[in-house]
Amino acid sequence: MSAAPGTRLTPLAVAVLGAGRIGRKHAETLARRVENCRVPWIVEPLEDAGRACAADVGAQWTSDAARAIADPAVDAVLIATPTNTHADLIEMAASYGKPILCEKPIDLTMERTLAAIGAAEKAGVPLQIGFQRRYDPSYMRARRMIEEGAVGTIELVTATSRDPQPAPISYLKVSGGIFRDASIHDFDVVRYLTGHEVVEVFAYGAALVDPAIGEIGDADTVVASLRFDNGALGVVTASRRAVYGYDVSAEVFGSAGKVVVGESPETLVRRYGRDGVTRDNIFWFLQRFEESYVAEVQDFVACLRAGRTPRITGEDGRAALAIADAATQSFKEGRPVAVGKRPVPAGAA
Amino acid sequence: MSAAPGTRLTPLAVAVLGAGRIGRKHAETLARRVENCRVPWIVEPLEDAGRACAADVGAQWTSDAARAIADPAVDAVLIATPTNTHADLIEMAASYGKPILCEKPIDLTMERTLAAIGAAEKAGVPLQIGFQRRYDPSYMRARRMIEEGAVGTIELVTATSRDPQPAPISYLKVSGGIFRDASIHDFDVVRYLTGHEVVEVFAYGAALVDPAIGEIGDADTVVASLRFDNGALGVVTASRRAVYGYDVSAEVFGSAGKVVVGESPETLVRRYGRDGVTRDNIFWFLQRFEESYVAEVQDFVACLRAGRTPRITGEDGRAALAIADAATQSFKEGRPVAVGKRPVPAGAA
Amino acid sequence: MSAAPGTRLTPLAVAVLGAGRIGRKHAETLARRVENCRVPWIVEPLEDAGRACAADVGAQWTSDAARAIADPAVDAVLIATPTNTHADLIEMAASYGKPILCEKPIDLTMERTLAAIGAAEKAGVPLQIGFQRRYDPSYMRARRMIEEGAVGTIELVTATSRDPQPAPISYLKVSGGIFRDASIHDFDVVRYLTGHEVVEVFAYGAALVDPAIGEIGDADTVVASLRFDNGALGVVTASRRAVYGYDVSAEVFGSAGKVVVGESPETLVRRYGRDGVTRDNIFWFLQRFEESYVAEVQDFVACLRAGRTPRITGEDGRAALAIADAATQSFKEGRPVAVGKRPVPAGAA
Amino acid sequence: MSAAPGTRLTPLAVAVLGAGRIGRKHAETLARRVENCRVPWIVEPLEDAGRACAADVGAQWTSDAARAIADPAVDAVLIATPTNTHADLIEMAASYGKPILCEKPIDLTMERTLAAIGAAEKAGVPLQIGFQRRYDPSYMRARRMIEEGAVGTIELVTATSRDPQPAPISYLKVSGGIFRDASIHDFDVVRYLTGHEVVEVFAYGAALVDPAIGEIGDADTVVASLRFDNGALGVVTASRRAVYGYDVSAEVFGSAGKVVVGESPETLVRRYGRDGVTRDNIFWFLQRFEESYVAEVQDFVACLRAGRTPRITGEDGRAALAIADAATQSFKEGRPVAVGKRPVPAGAA
Repeated sequence: MSAAPGTRLTPLAVAVLGAGRIGRKHAETLARRVENCRVPWIVEPLEDAGRACAADVGAQWTSDAARAIADPAVDAVLIATPTNTHADLIEMAASYGKPILCEKPIDLTMERTLAAIGAAEKAGVPLQIGFQRRYDPSYMRARRMIEEGAVGTIELVTATSRDPQPAPISYLKVSGGIFRDASIHDFDVVRYLTGHEVVEVFAYGAALVDPAIGEIGDADTVVASLRFDNGALGVVTASRRAVYGYDVSAEVFGSAGKVVVGESPETLVRRYGRDGVTRDNIFWFLQRFEESYVAEVQDFVACLRAGRTPRITGEDGRAALAIADAATQSFKEGRPVAVGKRPVPAGAA
Repeated sequence: MSAAPGTRLTPLAVAVLGAGRIGRKHAETLARRVENCRVPWIVEPLEDAGRACAADVGAQWTSDAARAIADPAVDAVLIATPTNTHADLIEMAASYGKPILCEKPIDLTMERTLAAIGAAEKAGVPLQIGFQRRYDPSYMRARRMIEEGAVGTIELVTATSRDPQPAPISYLKVSGGIFRDASIHDFDVVRYLTGHEVVEVFAYGAALVDPAIGEIGDADTVVASLRFDNGALGVVTASRRAVYGYDVSAEVFGSAGKVVVGESPETLVRRYGRDGVTRDNIFWFLQRFEESYVAEVQDFVACLRAGRTPRITGEDGRAALAIADAATQSFKEGRPVAVGKRPVPAGAA
Repeated sequence: MSAAPGTRLTPLAVAVLGAGRIGRKHAETLARRVENCRVPWIVEPLEDAGRACAADVGAQWTSDAARAIADPAVDAVLIATPTNTHADLIEMAASYGKPILCEKPIDLTMERTLAAIGAAEKAGVPLQIGFQRRYDPSYMRARRMIEEGAVGTIELVTATSRDPQPAPISYLKVSGGIFRDASIHDFDVVRYLTGHEVVEVFAYGAALVDPAIGEIGDADTVVASLRFDNGALGVVTASRRAVYGYDVSAEVFGSAGKVVVGESPETLVRRYGRDGVTRDNIFWFLQRFEESYVAEVQDFVACLRAGRTPRITGEDGRAALAIADAATQSFKEGRPVAVGKRPVPAGAA
Repeated sequence: MSAAPGTRLTPLAVAVLGAGRIGRKHAETLARRVENCRVPWIVEPLEDAGRACAADVGAQWTSDAARAIADPAVDAVLIATPTNTHADLIEMAASYGKPILCEKPIDLTMERTLAAIGAAEKAGVPLQIGFQRRYDPSYMRARRMIEEGAVGTIELVTATSRDPQPAPISYLKVSGGIFRDASIHDFDVVRYLTGHEVVEVFAYGAALVDPAIGEIGDADTVVASLRFDNGALGVVTASRRAVYGYDVSAEVFGSAGKVVVGESPETLVRRYGRDGVTRDNIFWFLQRFEESYVAEVQDFVACLRAGRTPRITGEDGRAALAIADAATQSFKEGRPVAVGKRPVPAGAA
C-alpha cells in the first residue's frame, strides 16, 4: 500500500515475520487499520502463503528474514513466527536497531528469553510482547477499576482459559506444555490486573481430554494455585477442550469487592423455548480478541512514533514465563515451586 | 488508495456523497475494509470537511455532486448527505446508471420517495437503503432463528430505540419527526425480523424530554401499536433521551417461543460492591453498530460484483416510511391509521 | 389449629371463602405462616374440596357463606371464590362489620364494584384487594427506587404478562375478557410503580392462540397503549400462551434512568453445551409469586391488628378495573377511550 | 401444636436440640411446614432463648438433653447445638434408638466423627447430616443434569463460598478452622455434584481479612486444589469477607460441556443509570438457602415415615471432614496431602 495522500508523515514500514494465522492478521492491521503505516516485507518460508499475504497487503515476499530486517527502509519488525525462532529474530532485529513487536512467548526456555531481552535492552530497541488481552477493552477497564480501588486490597484472584478443542499433537509437542502455551496468558493477566507478582505456584495437571497429551508428558486440564507477593492467593485453571466454546474469564476479589471479566457471548440474541432460555457463546479466540489484536498493533506503532516505552515489555514476557516454568515444575514434581525472579544483570546495583 | 497489488480485478470506484459522521465512516470502510475498492470522490459542500475526508481515503474532493456522479470512472455512489437531498441524488445517479447505497430515509415525503425508487427501477440500477441493523450479527441471527421456526407463528412483536440525548432542535426541525427519523429503524426491524407487513398503526407521542420538541409539533417519547398483515400485534417505543446509554432491543414472540435481541453492554466487566453488581452500558450507536456499518458497505460492493439484488431495497425504504407516515398521522389525529401500500405502477398487473 | 401456646394475644380467626387453588393457598398461609391466627371456617360449595381443605387447616367446613361470615367468632374474611360472587360477599361481610381480603377483581362490572366498595366504606370495614404483585420483593424494591428518584420524571412505562397456556374456554367465557382477567395485574402494577393514574387507553387485541377465544368475543394477544395523568406514556402487552413459561416483567423509564423488574428463572443453573448456554424459566405463577401470596395475607392480618388501612384498597381495585374497561371498549371500538374516574359519592365535596 | 384434624397418622414428634439461629429455624419448620409433625421439646441451656423458642412452636423447654432424648414420646431428634456437643448427642440418641438429623459437621475430629457414625450404625438409627445445599433446587437440578450426562466425563470442578463478614473471633477459635467450618460445604458439594471422591488436596491459606485470624493459626482466604478418584481436578476457594454479599457458586466442567450453579441476586430488579446497570446481591445465607433448610427437614421426616435411608448420611459427613482435614494439614505443611478413607470396620469384608 502506498502512503495515503494528504498525510504529512513518512509512512512507518513494519516488516511482518510469519504469514500464519496471526501473522496475516497483523499484516492486515498494519496495512489497513493503522494510519500512515505500510508493510514492506512479508517473511515466510512457505512461498505460497508468503506471496498471498504479501499481495494482500502490498508487500514483497521473502523467505529470508535477514533480508527484510536489514533493509534500511524497514522501521520495525513484527515477529509472528513459530516460538522457537523468536529469540533469534529478536536478537537479529536488535542488532539492526529495529523495534520489535513479538508474539508471546519470547522463548520456551528462560535462558534464551533472558538473552533476547538482554539483546533488545543493550541495543536500546523497544520490545513489545503480544499479550493481546491487555488491549481488550474489558481487561483494560477491569484494570482501571482495580487501580481506582474497586476491589480494595487484593486477596483472591482467579483466571481461566479453555479452548474449544486441542491443537494438533504435533503442535503440542513443541508448545512447551500447557502452562507455557496456554496458561501463560492467564499468568500475564493476573499480573496485569493486580499489579502484583506471583511468588509461588502449586499445579495439578492431568491428561483427560486426550491420552496422547499425557504420553508426551503434558497435561490438558490444569489447576495452578498461586501465591502473590502481597500475600494474596490465586488460581489459574485451563482446559484444552470446552465443547461449548472459548471460555476465558478472570476475577479479582478483595477487601472492597470484586471485579469480573466475564465470558463472551457471540451475539445479543436469546431464544426462549420449552427447553429454557438459550444464548450463544463465542468459539474463536480471534473473534473474542479481534479488537485487541488490532489495538496492540496500533499501540506499538503509536509508541514508536511517540517514543514511548511499549505497555508490555520483555520483562512481562519473562515474568509470565517464570510462572509457567514454576507451574510446569510443580506439576512434574508434585510440590509448590517458587517463581524465579529476574537475575540482576552483571554490573547492576 | 491505489489498487492493492496482487488482486486481479479492477478496483471498484465508489463516490461518497457527504462527509459528515456517517459519510466519513463509510468512506473509510470503502477505502480500508473492502477488498479491491477505492473512493475516487468525496462530495461535500463544506470544503474543509470534504478535503480532510478526501485526504484520509485518497480521494479527490468536490462540492459538485454531478461532477462525481457523472465521472465515468465512478462505478457506484454512496449517499450520506442530509435527507432532503437523497431523492435528487438518487435520481441523478440513476440517470447515469450508477448503483446506489443511500442512507435511510430516502425522503421524508412519500411522493419523492416513490419518485426516487421509480427512477432507480426505471434505470435498472440497484438501490440499497442503509438500514444497518439488518447487518448486525444479532439481528441477522434472530431473523435466521425465526425463519427456522424458533418462535412458530408470530403473534407479538416489540422493538425500542432510545438515544442517550436528543439531537439539536435545529436538526429535529428538519428530521421529519421522531417516527420518520428514529422509529423508522424499528419499523424496518419488525418487518425484517417477522417477514410481515404492518397494516395499521396507533401512536401516542409526547414531548417530555424537551418542551421545545413539542413546540415544533414533534414528540420525544412515543408508543406506536402495530397490527400486522397476519393478524399479529406489535409495539414500537422510542425516547430521545436515555441517560444510561443507547438502548436498542427487539423481541419476536409466537406460538413456539420468543427470540430477543437484547441491549448491549460496552464491555464484559462486572463490578461487585456494597451497592450491588454493576455492568456498563453502551452509549454510542456507532459503537453498537460498528460491525453493521462495515458489513452493509461490504455487502453493497459484493452485490454489485455478483450482480445480486441488494438485501435492502427501495421498497424496504418505502415500506418503513409508510409505517412512519401512518404513525405520525395517528399521533397527530388520535386514531388508528392504515399503512399505505405501494401504489401499483401504471401498466403493472 | 389451636392457639399456639405462649402467645398472649387471642388468635385472629379468618374465615376463608373458596377452597380452590388460591383459597387453599391462603388458608394454609393463615393457618401456618401467620403468627397467632386461625381459620375457623372453610366455605366451599363442593363438599369434598371443602372438607379436605378444612381438615388440612383445622377448620370446619360449610357451604353456607352467611353462616361463616355471621359467626361471632370470625374476625375477618378472605374471599377467594369465583369473581361473580365477590361483590355479594363483600357486601355481606361489610354488613357484619368483618374486614375483608378479596381476590381481584372485585367484580367484572363497574356498577357492582362501586357498590361493594361503597358497602365496605359505609360499614367502615377494611377492604384489601389481592393484587399480590405489590407484595413481591422485586416490585416493592422497584417502587421504592422509583420513589427515591432512580428514574427521575417518569416518561415511558411498560409491563407484560404471559401465561404458559390459556385457561379453559369455560373459564374464559366468564372471565370478563383478557383485560379484566389478566392485564388487570399490569394495570395495577403501572399505577403502583409510577404513582400515576392512567387517563386514556388504546388497545389492540387478537385471537391468535385459539380461534375459540375470538368466537367468544375475547382476545388472547393484546397491546394496550396508555397515557398517564402526568403526560407519560405506557404500554401493556399480554398473551394467553408463552410456551417457555410464565413471563411477567415491567419497566419504568424516565429522565434519570430506568428500573426494570425482570422475568424470573426457576433456578440458578446454567448449562453450557454445543448449542449454547441455557438457563431455565419459571412456569407457574404460584411459584413466581409464592412469597407475595404469603406476604399479602400476613400484611392483611398485621393491618387488622395495627388498625392500619390496607396497602391495596377497594379504590385500587376500581382504578385497575376502570383501565381494563377502557381497554376492552377500545379493543371493541378501535379508538382510544378515556379511563373513568371514581364517581364522586353523593354529598361529597 | 396439636395434631391437625383430619390426618390419620400419629404426628411425628421431633425434639430440637439447640435454640440458636438454625435450631429455631428448624423448630419452626417442624412445627409449621411439615405435615403432621410436632416439636415436643426444645433443649437449650439458655433458659430465655429456650423458653421463647418452645413457646413459639408449642414445645416444652428443658436444658437437659437426656430428658428429651429419653422421652418415649420423642420419635426423632434434630441436633443444632454447638459442634463440640454433636458427637455426644448422636451417641446418646443412638443409644435410645432415635433417628437423628444433625447439623454439619459431626465433629471437628475424625476420631469422634467415626465413633458417632459407628454408634448410629450399630444402633441402626438413621443419621442425616445437614448439608443443606443438597436440598437447594439449583444444586439438585445441577446434579440431575450431570447424572443425565450434561457435562460428559467430569474433568474440572470449582466451588466457592464467601461470607459477607467473618464470624467473631471467639467463634472462629472453636470452629475447627476455615476448611472444616466453611469450605466443608464446598467439599460436600463437589462430592455431591460429581459423584466422585477427592483423593488429594493442596491448600494455600492466608489471613488477609483480619490478622487476628492468622494469630489463632487459621486462614480467612483459601485456595484448595483437589484431585478426584477419576483423575479429574478441582479447586475450592473461600473468603470470610465478601463485602458485596453472600457469594456461593459451583461449576462442573467436562467432556460434553459445563453446568454452573450461579450466585444469587436478591430480587429481579435492575437499575439503569449514568453509572451503568445495577442489580442487587443476596447477603444472608439463611435467605439464600431458605428453601433448602425447610426441604431438608421435610425430607428427614419423609424418610423416617417411608423407612428410606436419608439422602445425606454420616459417611457424607465423614468424607467432607476428611477433605477438610487434608486441606488443613496441607495448609499447615505446604505440601499435597492424601484424603483419608473410611477405616474398614473390624470384621467387614
